[in-house]
Parts: sequence; structure tokens; C-alpha cells
Amino acid sequence: MSETVIHPIDLILKKRDGGELNAAEVQHFVRTVVLYGEQQIAEANHQLPATLAAHDRITAAQIASMLMAIFQRGLTRVELAELTKAMRYSGETFDATGLDTFTVDKHSTGGVGDKSSLLIAPVIAAAGLEGKPSISVPMISGRSLGHTGGTLDKLETIPGFDTQLPLARMREVLERTHAALVGQTPRLVPADRILYAMRDHTGTVESPNLICASIMSKKLAEDIRGLVLDVKVGSGAFMPSYEQSQFLASLMVSTGELAGTRTAAVLTTMDEPLGRFSGNWVEVWECVDIMQGRRHATSSDLIELSNVLSGWMLYFAGKSASPEDGAKLSDELLRNGAAYKAWLSIVEAQGGDVLVFNDPAAFHQPKATRVVKAERAGYLSAMDCKQVGWAVQRLGAGRARPGDPVSAHAGIESHAKLGAKLEAGQPVFTLFAEDAALLDEPEQMLRATLKICDRPPTRHPLVREVVTGRPGSLKQAT
Amino acid sequence: MSETVIHPIDLILKKRDGGELNAAEVQHFVRTVVLYGEQQIAEANHQLPATLAAHDRITAAQIASMLMAIFQRGLTRVELAELTKAMRYSGETFDATGLDTFTVDKHSTGGVGDKSSLLIAPVIAAAGLEGKPSISVPMISGRSLGHTGGTLDKLETIPGFDTQLPLARMREVLERTHAALVGQTPRLVPADRILYAMRDHTGTVESPNLICASIMSKKLAEDIRGLVLDVKVGSGAFMPSYEQSQFLASLMVSTGELAGTRTAAVLTTMDEPLGRFSGNWVEVWECVDIMQGRRHATSSDLIELSNVLSGWMLYFAGKSASPEDGAKLSDELLRNGAAYKAWLSIVEAQGGDVLVFNDPAAFHQPKATRVVKAERAGYLSAMDCKQVGWAVQRLGAGRARPGDPVSAHAGIESHAKLGAKLEAGQPVFTLFAEDAALLDEPEQMLRATLKICDRPPTRHPLVREVVTGRPGSLKQAT
Repeated sequence: MSETVIHPIDLILKKRDGGELNAAEVQHFVRTVVLYGEQQIAEANHQLPATLAAHDRITAAQIASMLMAIFQRGLTRVELAELTKAMRYSGETFDATGLDTFTVDKHSTGGVGDKSSLLIAPVIAAAGLEGKPSISVPMISGRSLGHTGGTLDKLETIPGFDTQLPLARMREVLERTHAALVGQTPRLVPADRILYAMRDHTGTVESPNLICASIMSKKLAEDIRGLVLDVKVGSGAFMPSYEQSQFLASLMVSTGELAGTRTAAVLTTMDEPLGRFSGNWVEVWECVDIMQGRRHATSSDLIELSNVLSGWMLYFAGKSASPEDGAKLSDELLRNGAAYKAWLSIVEAQGGDVLVFNDPAAFHQPKATRVVKAERAGYLSAMDCKQVGWAVQRLGAGRARPGDPVSAHAGIESHAKLGAKLEAGQPVFTLFAEDAALLDEPEQMLRATLKICDRPPTRHPLVREVVTGRPGSLKQAT
Repeated sequence: MSETVIHPIDLILKKRDGGELNAAEVQHFVRTVVLYGEQQIAEANHQLPATLAAHDRITAAQIASMLMAIFQRGLTRVELAELTKAMRYSGETFDATGLDTFTVDKHSTGGVGDKSSLLIAPVIAAAGLEGKPSISVPMISGRSLGHTGGTLDKLETIPGFDTQLPLARMREVLERTHAALVGQTPRLVPADRILYAMRDHTGTVESPNLICASIMSKKLAEDIRGLVLDVKVGSGAFMPSYEQSQFLASLMVSTGELAGTRTAAVLTTMDEPLGRFSGNWVEVWECVDIMQGRRHATSSDLIELSNVLSGWMLYFAGKSASPEDGAKLSDELLRNGAAYKAWLSIVEAQGGDVLVFNDPAAFHQPKATRVVKAERAGYLSAMDCKQVGWAVQRLGAGRARPGDPVSAHAGIESHAKLGAKLEAGQPVFTLFAEDAALLDEPEQMLRATLKICDRPPTRHPLVREVVTGRPGSLKQAT
């Protein structure tokens, strides 16, 4: 049997001219990208790179050329599903075979103060512990970058909490607690790591297709049967317009469904930091408060969002008759202590010290704080949420570059939410940092972005729209 | 005075999204490409590359990404003129300052049997020697590649002829003989060398804008005031369709005119080899025959084309009142021996042995020949001219890869032109090679492509259309 030999240059020419790559062609491209990455690693380690056949060799310039061709020409839904699949299987994957549980996860395109994963994982685990049908969350998360926070950075403020579990350990934790909260292993989806580094410096980051393949390949490598995507819209969102967020949502849903994973995308408003705190430990504190039964007024949007997302996951798993019923079940599990119990199990299973939850406020020890007050009376009308995210980053809670350290105690507290009626001098934000010198610039950034008006603003609902893969299921928020 | 710092990534993003790069941005891109090339050379020679500022550093992947963005988004006429200019001045250039002569040149997009440069250069030199207004041809040519021949390979079959002159020597020859026939110096338009190598393996060769910039930067580096472009159309042409040839012609004309060089593009038919011979020495032989006053019937298309192109060059220089008068003057200079006299001066000035022209047929000594005869009676109706070019290459006259050697004596003679009435068994081609084993495959290729029909074919005129930079000057051939 002879197979047709595929050369990288022919794939570039085909995509350049608007052609559709078939499964074998997409797989070959991703295979050559992985081989390229292995050669780069060998060279960096002063090892002799493997000798490759001509058709297996791709250069950095060819990868970049293909990425720009994809950027310009786009991909069909089938090509995108094939690209995502080839990337998903480009390295090791989590394998849930034999666990006899419905695996689910959530993904967010990134927000400010978005700690919903820290509520959703325990809620799903609590539901999973309640018996059939079984449900579990093999959650592989990322780190803070730029104006957005990262789940791993938040979890790692818990003393002893280990996010760097090999997949075998992750499986043990999942089996025991119905949730595992870990970081990407070095060998998971290597194609994405190579392609992302390439996109970053060749101007091909902002391609909805490439964004979708990057996100979905990593999520589907978790072997999940259900997935809910939180696609942010508004001033703090990664995507610049509502339409582009909608388009990305539809791409991700079709890619998930074509991979056999039930997928829904919820478009949610990110016009201000979600919940009470934005930072690292302060976000864990906020979630622990909620799970211990204390609901601060400024946490209500966070709780609503978490319940909506959990609701879809519970619905996909057959734990509820509808996403709405799922959201009610989620709220109940948060209120009745079941989620908190699951949380303690997860943290213990991953080596974390649960004693710190006895008084989470006491563990919050920033070296310097400053209060930003309303300069006049009126309604809190608007802010550039992305600027708020950058202020949090500059306080020390986020990172400008991968690998930079982050502060556990830096962050902000939002005392008032959009629409709130303020007196002059009333606190709007409190800033936390490890060093007083770090307060000035973020304070200026926050002052510059706050708008206080005489009339209450028109606000978008938290949930704008849900996109699912079933015909006629596109729902507008009421 | 502070200048705005331009980073390569920002230029990629701008072009990616369809923006127009300004002159400073285009110059910066080309500058970083040249610096990249210098780094590559330093590395290849195991030298320490120079340390570059961040905004001067561009990677191979970034160059490829930019090229694909240009491929997809195109360039405005002004951007294209700026790109061409930046490339033109990326290394050393010929400088005609002080020569007090109107410099002109011609360029062909590449054909089979196209030796018109070998007639045009002596014609222009002869006109130049005749006194005011002075006219000269600083002709920098290329080598055979693929199915097309190269002027340098033909010239180098003349014993002693040196095409590798430094620019200062070229100027001396030009001053003395009004023509110089040389190859590109290593430091002329280095940006094109780097970009072409990159385009070749990243699928960005077939961009009309990038083709135009590549051709025009090298021609304009000759410091020419007039340029005529021979843009081939038909089965032997590089561009796949008439419309694409037209578009390339219009790009090159506008680029030339924007650089202050009078430019015309003549779209000419390339459906069969031009003239009597295709190869290397055989093409010199054909031209010497013509300049010595012997006009073989099969050379008539070559003579017509050469006169048309020379006509435009003479017209631009003010040697004739119109291109048509220029063509007549060209024909006269070929007939009255003036072009031959100029030819001898040029060859002598570049070290060539003119004795070989006393009996050019005797110098043609292929080791093996074979005649391809008409398999039936009828009219010679069609051939795939590109296939004929490849047959010539396989005989040994051309090269598959840059740097390969070529045979002086390999080639073909066309005994009959399209439209000719043939008897069965009448010779159509004679093949020449240095080794009888090289004859079989080209013979098969030629046999396979010849079509003989009962009715005479409809043929395109040699000159299809002339594109100039003046409004309303687009002429259809009658």
C-alpha cells in the first residue's frame, strides 16, 4: 500500500488560494509543526536533531506563512474541527476511559475578577459525589497574563496546593474527589505551544479560527463529554466586538459538537470586575466566603454567573432536566455546604492546607492599601474594565510576560458595582499591594477610567446570549 | 529630534488588516530584511552576528508572515513603488550620473528561444554611437531557470566573454560601447535575493505585487531613464492568464513611471519558441546571422519582436518621433551592419573572442542530434510552449536549480512555425545534446505536445497590446 506523500509547501499553496485542507493534510501540517518543535528543543539542548524526510520538514517561515494564510482565508467548520483534533492528539491526553463518570469542564475567554472556576469545580464535584449519574471536572487551567487573571495563580496562594500534577495523579484526584484543578503538563497539546509562540510574533493571534483551535484542542484533550464556554463581551473582553465574540462562540460550539462533546457557549457581560475582589488570594477568600454561606452584596454577579455555567454542565451530565434547573441545583449546593465540603476534599487531595480557610480574611496581608473614593456624588456609570484589569496587574497580581512572578496579596476590592448610587467621598475601590510604591500608577489608572453621572446608566444583563450546537437553540437573553 | 520607532510586528499587523504602509514603514521593513540577511551570512560564516536593536530585528517567520499578508491583501500603487524603491536602494546601484547619455533597458518575463536582448543591445549601442541624443543600455541580465533561457548563459558561450563585471568596469564598457551585458553583482539589490529565497519556500512567489517589486527593483537599480517590458502571454508564459499578464504589466508600468523612468509594457505572444533556435550558442549564432545580414525565414518573429522593443527604447530616448519609427530605425541598424559593428565592440570590450563569429555554424558542435518529423500531413496547429522549454532544459541547455551547469551546444532548431503546412515526414524540430542518452525524453516530450490538424490554426498576433503610463495609451493590437 502506498500513501500519497504530502509536502508542507503544497498545503500552504492550497490554503493560500482558498482551498479546503482534508483531514490527512491538516494532520500532516500539525505533525510537521510538532517535529519542528522537537528539532528546536534538540538544538536548544545542543543535541543532534533527528534527520527528517523532506516532506516532514517545515521551517518557521513556512509555519508563519500557513498561519497568515489561515488568518486571511479562514477555515471551514470541518477543517477547523480537524485542526483542533490534530492539535488535541499532538501529545499526551487525559484519558477518562474506565472512570464511569460524565466528564465536564468550563472555559472562559478571560476576565477580571473571574473566579467562577473556584465555585464551579466544587459544585460539580458535590453533584458528582451525590451518586448516579456520576459527574466530574478534569479542569486544566492557565495562568494570569496581561489584564486577565489565571485560576492557577489563585489556587497556588493556598499553602501547599500543587497544581502541577502528572495526568496519572490527576486521574486519582478526580476519581476520589470528582474534580481536579491542575495546570497543563509539558507534553499536553505541544502543537498549541509551538503555534501560539509563532502566532504571538507573526501577527496571527487574532484569528477566530486559530483562537478556537487553541482553546478547544486543550479542553478536548481533557477527554470531556460536556463543555460550557464563557465568552466575555464588553470593555474587559478579549474580543473587540460583540459580533466577533458571537462568531468565536459559534466556532467553538461547532468544533466541540463535531468532536462529540456537548458544547454550549454563554456570552456574558464583562464591563466591570466580576464579584467583590480581583487578585489572587482575595479571590479564593471571596469564594470560600460564599461556600461557607456568607454572600457579600458585591459577589452576586459572580454567584449568578457560576450558577448559569454550572447549570449547563449539570444539564449535559443528566443531573438536571434543564440548564435552568441545573443553575438552581448549583445554587443549592453552594448554600447547603455540599460544595464547600467538596472544595475541602479537592484542596486536601492536591496537598493544600485547609486550615487557612478558617479565617480567610486574616490570611490576606497586603503591605500597602489605598482607597479610591468617588470624586462626586452620582451613579457609577462606566469604566474601562480592561484598564481595571491592567491596574490589578500593575499592583502585582498579574504578569506582563509568561514566567513573571505574581503577588498573592495584591489586588483590588470593588465596593460599588455599575449602577450604584454614590455619595461624594464614598469608597469605590480599595487597592492592595506588597509595596506602597506600586499603588500610585494603578490608582491613577482607576481614577481615569471611572465615570460618575447624574442619571443611572443602562446596563447589559450578565448573560447576553447562549449559543448551542442544536438548531434553533440560539437564545437571546430577555 | 526624535524619530518614531517602527517595529516589524506593527507593520505585519497593519498590512494583515488591509492598511497602507507609508514610505518610512516600507523602508523599515526592507531595512530589517537586509539586516536579517546579513545576520544569516554572518552565522553561515561562523562569525558573531551584529547586535541589533529590537525594532531592527525581524525573524524569518515574520518576513514570511508579511509576504503572505502582502500576497493576500495586495499593495497600493504607491506602496508598491515604495517597496520597489526601498529594494532598489538596499545595496549598491549602478550610477549613470555624468555619463551624459539616456540610459534604457528592456526586460522579459521569460520565454523560450527569446534572444532579443542579443539584438536589442547592439541596436541601441549603434544608435548611441551615432551621436546626439546619446543612448546606452546598462543591461543586467539573469540566467536560465526551469523552462526559460537566460541571456548570461547564451553570452558565456562566446569564448572569453566576461559577464561578471563590477559596476565600475560596467560603466567603462558602457561609456566606450554604449552597451554592457552583465550579471547581477552580489551586492546589487540584496533585499530581492533574501525575499526571493523566502518567497520560494513559503508559497508567496505568485504575487503580482511581489513579482513586480522583484523585477523593477533590479531594473531600476541600473539607473535607467527608459524601460520596455516584454510581458509574455500564451502557453510558454510565466503568468497563467492573459488578464494576469495585463495586471502585472500595469503594475510594472506604474511602478516605473512613479520612479521617474519612462516605462512601456508590450504584451507578446509566446505560443512557440521565438525564432529559429532555442538553446545557448545556437541563439548567439542566430543573432550573428541576422546582424551579418542573413535572415532565416524562421527568425522573422524574433526580428519583429526585437524591432518593436528597440523602437520603444529609441522613442523614449528621443532618437525617433514614435515607437513605430523607432522600430524602423532598429530594423535599419540591423540591416546596414551598424548593429553588428556595435556587437563586435561590446563583445571585445567584455573580453570575448570575435573570431568565433566568422563561422558561427562551425562553432556549433553538439555530440548528438535527432530530428523530430511530422507524423502526418497538415497544419502545425499548436504546442505547449512551456513543454518545449522544458525539453530544451532536459537536453542540457537549461537548469533545474540555480547553480547547475548548462551545455553550450544543447538546444533545438524549429524548422516550422505555427501555421506552417507540413508534409508527412517533414522535419519540425532538430534536437542537439552533448550526449545521445539525453535525446530520448525531450523527443518524447516534443512529440507529445505537437498538434497537426487539417485546417490552419487561428493565431494570435506577436504583439497583443502595449501598456504605457499615459492616460488613454492602452492600445489594442489590430
